[in-house]
Amino acid sequence: MSTPSSLEDLIGALRCLPGVGPKSAQRMAYHLLQRDKQGAMHLSRSLDHAVNTVKHCSKCNNFSEAEVCSMCSSSRRETNLLCVVEMPADLLMMEQAQCYRGMYFVLMGRLSPLDGVGASELPLARLQRRAQELSCEVILATNFTVEG
Amino acid sequence: MSTPSSLEDLIGALRCLPGVGPKSAQRMAYHLLQRDKQGAMHLSRSLDHAVNTVKHCSKCNNFSEAEVCSMCSSSRRETNLLCVVEMPADLLMMEQAQCYRGMYFVLMGRLSPLDGVGASELPLARLQRRAQELSCEVILATNFTVEG
Repeated sequence: MSTPSSLEDLIGALRCLPGVGPKSAQRMAYHLLQRDKQGAMHLSRSLDHAVNTVKHCSKCNNFSEAEVCSMCSSSRRETNLLCVVEMPADLLMMEQAQCYRGMYFVLMGRLSPLDGVGASELPLARLQRRAQELSCEVILATNFTVEG
Repeated sequence: MSTPSSLEDLIGALRCLPGVGPKSAQRMAYHLLQRDKQGAMHLSRSLDHAVNTVKHCSKCNNFSEAEVCSMCSSSRRETNLLCVVEMPADLLMMEQAQCYRGMYFVLMGRLSPLDGVGASELPLARLQRRAQELSCEVILATNFTVEG
């Protein structure tokens, strides 16, 4: 009765974020409307912009705004090595270590049947095609877990 | 180098949410772009809509889309009691208990000098005006803390 429908809707929408339950969503909505309307508008615009511009690089599958990302189109990378990582964050970590100059392939996930991610949900066919294209050595840099 | 600017921007924007640090923001952004673009668009629209339509009821200070919220304009509430609560969630809890039929005033916060919320940040003058208007009994239902 006393919660406006647009506020109810916002609380529901915030639950699409991983790890955010009903209580956190309510707290976030109150915070944004009460103390940070500018932040909320910025978030709204950023979401809209990112969803419409970010796609996947056709070569390494990483997030990219262009058809081929800057790393794959760089001429200064060694093309005889292909490192397979789970997430873009893993790629960033490898790059920060500055010990690898080859190419990457980002799986964007890992085998996890419990979450409904099977082999068909991962871009394994594209990984195979990319490896054949480069005819290179493939390094698996997935996590040391059963899924990895 | 390898993170698109619109993705960087989204990760930064997500940090306006309370309790979300750099790691969580990155995880949320990846999740939305990889698995839930629809949810992200819905969130974007909900934020925009809520920021532009939700304001405060001129009588009880609760979130409302109208100038006066449905509870304050209801003729079935007792106007000789005014219950002061901290947040809209507290009001909802009182209503669920179904033992109070009077009016409310929502402070939208509590005295908390450490977070920069002093007496001047709370709508105490409006509370006083409202209490005089109703010339009623005021019940403090703030939390049993130093701030309350």
